[in-house]
Amino acid sequence: MKTTIVSMALATTLAVAAGTAGADSLRDQARTMFSAVPQYPPVIDGNELTEDKVELGRMLFFEPRLSASHLISCNTCHNVGMGGHDYLPTSIGHGWQKGPRNAPTVYNAVFNAAQFWDGRAADLAEQAKGPVQAGVEMSSTPERVVATLKSMPAYVRQFEAAFPGQEDPVTFDNMATAIEAFEATLITPDARFDKYLRGDNTALNEQEKEGLALFMNKGCAACHGGVNFGGQGYFPFGLVTKPGAEILPAGDKGRFAVTETASDQYVFRAAPLRNIELTAPYFHSGAVWSLEEAVAVMGTAQLGTELADDEVHSIVAFLKTLTGQIPEIRYPVLPPSTDTTPRPAPMTR
Amino acid sequence: MKTTIVSMALATTLAVAAGTAGADSLRDQARTMFSAVPQYPPVIDGNELTEDKVELGRMLFFEPRLSASHLISCNTCHNVGMGGHDYLPTSIGHGWQKGPRNAPTVYNAVFNAAQFWDGRAADLAEQAKGPVQAGVEMSSTPERVVATLKSMPAYVRQFEAAFPGQEDPVTFDNMATAIEAFEATLITPDARFDKYLRGDNTALNEQEKEGLALFMNKGCAACHGGVNFGGQGYFPFGLVTKPGAEILPAGDKGRFAVTETASDQYVFRAAPLRNIELTAPYFHSGAVWSLEEAVAVMGTAQLGTELADDEVHSIVAFLKTLTGQIPEIRYPVLPPSTDTTPRPAPMTR
Repeated sequence: MKTTIVSMALATTLAVAAGTAGADSLRDQARTMFSAVPQYPPVIDGNELTEDKVELGRMLFFEPRLSASHLISCNTCHNVGMGGHDYLPTSIGHGWQKGPRNAPTVYNAVFNAAQFWDGRAADLAEQAKGPVQAGVEMSSTPERVVATLKSMPAYVRQFEAAFPGQEDPVTFDNMATAIEAFEATLITPDARFDKYLRGDNTALNEQEKEGLALFMNKGCAACHGGVNFGGQGYFPFGLVTKPGAEILPAGDKGRFAVTETASDQYVFRAAPLRNIELTAPYFHSGAVWSLEEAVAVMGTAQLGTELADDEVHSIVAFLKTLTGQIPEIRYPVLPPSTDTTPRPAPMTR
Repeated sequence: MKTTIVSMALATTLAVAAGTAGADSLRDQARTMFSAVPQYPPVIDGNELTEDKVELGRMLFFEPRLSASHLISCNTCHNVGMGGHDYLPTSIGHGWQKGPRNAPTVYNAVFNAAQFWDGRAADLAEQAKGPVQAGVEMSSTPERVVATLKSMPAYVRQFEAAFPGQEDPVTFDNMATAIEAFEATLITPDARFDKYLRGDNTALNEQEKEGLALFMNKGCAACHGGVNFGGQGYFPFGLVTKPGAEILPAGDKGRFAVTETASDQYVFRAAPLRNIELTAPYFHSGAVWSLEEAVAVMGTAQLGTELADDEVHSIVAFLKTLTGQIPEIRYPVLPPSTDTTPRPAPMTR
């Protein structure tokens, strides 16, 4: 995967004269590298998005009783009102612990090839099981989650409706499947860039088009391509020049922890750049608040290029055209705790 | 106020034979003590509920950046998906501190005569300023809040729309006014009891009607009357018999801290009982999870009566008819943090 994408980037750099392509050829080039966010959620193999399942997933996504403390829900760190994350360098979890990495946005996450900064979860269902159990995040257990959900009759009925024909539908796996179904609906179509890609020349101004050309021709698009402008492959952070320890802390070796392969040290998933305007601070360390600074760091670290100020500004202007329409989200009505609901345990672990 | 209500309870006890009133006289009696939750928000003197102001209030209610940590919003402890509170004995706040008292529900709070368990805030606008500044809750300051809101152009525009004609509308007071406007829309009409009150005899079953009769004739309604079944007056917890320290901790003297009057020791606002089925655990200490136990404690502590088991069950059955329709709430889209937004300060104080 990695090799293929780098080769494509080289080919791109050779094929297009920097910043001088006409409007149509600019779009033609962009169409070979990117695609628009669709209007409707994608089909997920083995997880049909029925109304009952998406509704169950909505309830679970906002359900703080999936955490031991009864305080933290998926939405706490992946806040759908705040670009799908928490505007924190790294998240605050159980017992006010500091999480190890910046929370990625849930918006359009369904389009990523794998989940987490190190890609350790193959899909959103697998991802959903992680934070629920992580001691530093929600600090619960599958047994506690199932006991909690089974203690509330409205949840049992909703699981039965979402997973018809199953004898014992209230399971940890089905919880994750339902959350994935809801999260698949969290997509943001109709960004200005997508309108441009579809043929609307007025959707981007000249500076934004200049930024798009630079983004493709400088090599950014090599890693940040596809529908999500990233999220598809893994790359060493500091491919050319390692950034400082404040941005790339020595203790977090990235994908190496997953693969235990030496070449995966400090390798991370290329961040998806959709709605990047809404997802500061940047990088897995959450160390950089300014999008301008993040772009400049990428230039030196990944491309070995000192981008000029006006190039940075043009690329940032372009990146802001990737902000899509946030879907309207109804807050779910969650059932009351009952006498058999495991009590909140804010001080465990 | 207190004297008046106690006298009314005595009159009630004398006027009606316990539990034997016919269907129509039961309703007639109930109509003298309670009223239905209206279909539309009430008029608030000096705070017109314009669409722009309610929308601003919705944004602010869900805005975690009103807290120093950027983690805690009004909705964290007054969760609109969970009966308007957090299903915790006492809330978790800044730095994972434990709050001093059980979080009251935000639903129908607009109908309370004053806010907080000790009534120290005259209205919801005054209330809203408390948790934002409390070190144990959101731990922010008015200056920080205003700087935060002014750093985001979308907020400035929304304040201008909500408070037209004001030269500098982004103020801490206007924040509170807008939150009050949104919270005034958080009402739950059409409880089964309200349908009964309006004339539908089939809305309550026999046990529930028996519970209603007991609730009025044993004296519960003396403190828990009006539209909100409480929230109107202050009474000593343990009027007849003091409950144990696990329910009434010695260190929390209630309204005494507000009035510094000896007779206000261990005096608290009579809890509003609307949606009581959704607001466990009970009492200012949040020490009792079972509604049956809470009713029994009230019998001995406030009325000096050991209620029989079947009486407790009937009263609880009746109380569950006070669960109304939760309004449909759209999650707001909050603007992104900018370069000038004060950074999250999770470790301050």
